[in-house]
Amino acid sequence: MKLGLLLPPAPKPGDHKWKLSRQIGINHAVAKLAPELTGDDPIWNMDSLLRSKARFEAAGFTISALEGDQMDMNRIKLGLPGRDEDIARYCQMLENMGKAGIHLLCYNFMGAVGWFRTAVAVPVRGGAMASAFRLADAETGPLPEFGEVSAEKVWENWTYFMDRVLPVAEKAGVVMAAHPDDPPIPAVRGIGRIFNSPDGFRRARDYARSPSNKITFCQSNFMLMGEPIEPLIREFAPNIAFVHFRDIKGTAEDFIETFHDDGPHDMVELLRLYHEVGFDGLIRPDHVPNMEGEYAGSEGGALNLSTTVGYEIQGRLFAVGYIKGMAEALGIRME
Amino acid sequence: MKLGLLLPPAPKPGDHKWKLSRQIGINHAVAKLAPELTGDDPIWNMDSLLRSKARFEAAGFTISALEGDQMDMNRIKLGLPGRDEDIARYCQMLENMGKAGIHLLCYNFMGAVGWFRTAVAVPVRGGAMASAFRLADAETGPLPEFGEVSAEKVWENWTYFMDRVLPVAEKAGVVMAAHPDDPPIPAVRGIGRIFNSPDGFRRARDYARSPSNKITFCQSNFMLMGEPIEPLIREFAPNIAFVHFRDIKGTAEDFIETFHDDGPHDMVELLRLYHEVGFDGLIRPDHVPNMEGEYAGSEGGALNLSTTVGYEIQGRLFAVGYIKGMAEALGIRME
Repeated sequence: MKLGLLLPPAPKPGDHKWKLSRQIGINHAVAKLAPELTGDDPIWNMDSLLRSKARFEAAGFTISALEGDQMDMNRIKLGLPGRDEDIARYCQMLENMGKAGIHLLCYNFMGAVGWFRTAVAVPVRGGAMASAFRLADAETGPLPEFGEVSAEKVWENWTYFMDRVLPVAEKAGVVMAAHPDDPPIPAVRGIGRIFNSPDGFRRARDYARSPSNKITFCQSNFMLMGEPIEPLIREFAPNIAFVHFRDIKGTAEDFIETFHDDGPHDMVELLRLYHEVGFDGLIRPDHVPNMEGEYAGSEGGALNLSTTVGYEIQGRLFAVGYIKGMAEALGIRME
Repeated sequence: MKLGLLLPPAPKPGDHKWKLSRQIGINHAVAKLAPELTGDDPIWNMDSLLRSKARFEAAGFTISALEGDQMDMNRIKLGLPGRDEDIARYCQMLENMGKAGIHLLCYNFMGAVGWFRTAVAVPVRGGAMASAFRLADAETGPLPEFGEVSAEKVWENWTYFMDRVLPVAEKAGVVMAAHPDDPPIPAVRGIGRIFNSPDGFRRARDYARSPSNKITFCQSNFMLMGEPIEPLIREFAPNIAFVHFRDIKGTAEDFIETFHDDGPHDMVELLRLYHEVGFDGLIRPDHVPNMEGEYAGSEGGALNLSTTVGYEIQGRLFAVGYIKGMAEALGIRME
């Protein structure tokens, strides 16, 4: 397997994520290159994509996947006027990715609201701060600007989108790996969700049996879908293009994220199983608690507004060590 | 096994080693409580020892071992006038440890110069900085204040010491676990070394077959002694009371320390072997490279004079994750 980390598109002064990642032996970067993060053009502009690629390469990384919305996808996801122009740009982006040698794209189809938590600093082991979700604490009314959008309408939008982008992705050699809805609940702020159940993924898989229509197996979301996780890994094995390795306690309606070694699931068995079913692609640890110095109230620190929830570095140093240790003991080569 | 970390006797503002260690699930602390570090009395004063113990306990740690010279031991190690007074204090310390419930003491018999490196910032993976030793770069002449001391004289000093402290340690229920000379070379600055070979440890073991006469298996030092490491683990298994888990490249005369996953030895096999031979005691990662932000020349930082070589925290977050991952995959319980 290839062990990667989601990294910011460029290191800021004092942000050591890039250098620390190289020091723990990470060669594969996962990047979100949206203009609001890069300060550059969207990557349907090839020059912009190549500038980002060169920056990562100069630091020793291969960009092995892009992840998240690389451009505003709301018109596409919600089926709003203008989506055809956006889809044309999306196709250009896929072509650019292929030419740039970036062959994996983790996308999601969560409209308007992306991954969603109702708390970002719940104390866990030793006072580290984890993110959590409780449906009872969530604002559930529809968003004023979008109103209610049924899941079937979102399915229509997805098929409309895939009919147009999938042939381009195939030709470009780019694998589109759908990420589950996070959390996998029926709707968020009035907008229906479609990748919130194994059946949703079955439907998407069966819609287009294409080498470019694949899955990001974000395992905690699959854990929350109400079916045992191991059979799901076996069932979806041919379609898994990317693994997000994490653990979680609770249900889709009430959960807290845990350190990788501190959750209820058998992480050794899961890693072994990915290997057993033949998965040899990209895996990355996901969503670690923020540790001392990385959250409001840490000793010696006011809230650092640049802190990212779930993606700070100290927990990931630990998580990468943990995954490397398991992999070595299981005889799984991590490159 | 019990997984521990060597921690400073108290956290300083901005030094997050204690809190981060708890957050990665460390329950067992290894401490050096020498007065120059605690600012308190030596621990032959029971109140001083109890103050330190209470401080660790309030933060959630059990002190599971003391390590290093807890008082000036040069008169003992070099056989100088005054050693009997020092040995009397040492005996008092052993009694105090037993009463305080601290039953493991990692001691060494390196006179005048302790663990010794000729470089502390050799770039390794990703520009992390490791410590290294090259005999050719070491000052080899005897120290003016001590002159030459033969290894046989050091043996005499050790037996003189052990004859007096071992019965006290036994009665107090304290295990004295001898640490190898680091590096294991014949002499440093004119002072002979005795724990620099398997034969040295055999001689010490055979001198007193006591439950309190044991070994700290600092594995990289044993790797440098010129015999294969696995048979040494098997041979010394009944005597190993404490494991220092580390890796190293080179020879006793020219080596560099590595990240735990980046050295030449099979760390999975070593951990598995400790378990197989029945070792169920304390293990700690040792000597990690200093990572970005922890060495002179790190981005955004002048030399932080409080930086400790080999014992900074980021590399240990990674190392503890690595050990935990291996242990879980091997079915070894780490408490």
